[in-house]
Amino acid sequence: MTQEENITALALKLKELALARRVTVGTAESCTGGLIAGAITAVPGSSEYFLGGVVSYANAVKTKLLGVPKEILNTVGAVSGECARFMAQGAAKALGADWAVSVTGVAGPDGGSAEKPVGTVWFGLCGPRGVEAHVRRFAGGRAAVRAQTAAHALSMLVEALAEAE
Amino acid sequence: MTQEENITALALKLKELALARRVTVGTAESCTGGLIAGAITAVPGSSEYFLGGVVSYANAVKTKLLGVPKEILNTVGAVSGECARFMAQGAAKALGADWAVSVTGVAGPDGGSAEKPVGTVWFGLCGPRGVEAHVRRFAGGRAAVRAQTAAHALSMLVEALAEAE
Repeated sequence: MTQEENITALALKLKELALARRVTVGTAESCTGGLIAGAITAVPGSSEYFLGGVVSYANAVKTKLLGVPKEILNTVGAVSGECARFMAQGAAKALGADWAVSVTGVAGPDGGSAEKPVGTVWFGLCGPRGVEAHVRRFAGGRAAVRAQTAAHALSMLVEALAEAE
Repeated sequence: MTQEENITALALKLKELALARRVTVGTAESCTGGLIAGAITAVPGSSEYFLGGVVSYANAVKTKLLGVPKEILNTVGAVSGECARFMAQGAAKALGADWAVSVTGVAGPDGGSAEKPVGTVWFGLCGPRGVEAHVRRFAGGRAAVRAQTAAHALSMLVEALAEAE
């Protein structure tokens, strides 16, 4: 299965679970820049459970639309678990969604550092039981990092909704 | 040139013009669900001019995050020039962008009507000289309508920035 087919399969599974659980979903994307929302909405009928998303590329947008505190961005930075958690929580609130996934990372080719090399991505997930975050490091160039990030974010939503049974 | 190559070429041209004009760009997407922002951010260095976007799939998100008046949605509807104009204006304001493009249409396979068949898409553009809107009707299935919509929205930004010289 190609990464594109994997993403399509995950988006279809998300539809099945979201409709079965009668829950709504939203996204907050930084490094993927809309790819996750794009994959979800490629599925016909996604308007039944997908409310929308915020592509918060600039830090000012993370603060204004998602409520990420400026001190988080100025201290631990945008690529951090704290930022991912605030983004997921802020998206759920702003969009009025039951579940929201967030991604913030370094897609490259520039922007990497020793501590946060290219491919470092923090993921956040906000749901009825609270908010959590974890980090992954992906290999490959910009397009590969973005595709792996989108696939992982979709799998997080799918797993969360599967467990919510 | 495939549609994908066309979109990539337009996103690269947008980078060139946005950097030359020193302007920032944002998006408000309904039927494309993030594809336009995804195409813009596929370009390395896009964070220099792309601030972010709002994927306003649900009407409540159009109202809450973009300021589209409820009476517009309840009368002329989401797929209208009025809605496209409010979305573009609302995105420019919410994101703090110099230019914002908006799309709202019927990607199908469902949701079409005699007046607004599948493939009907309204486009809005907000810039320093004000806001405008126009409609296009695209042929093909959901994926084709979404891809043509993304390409047209990118070409609107490119043409506007080229003329802004």
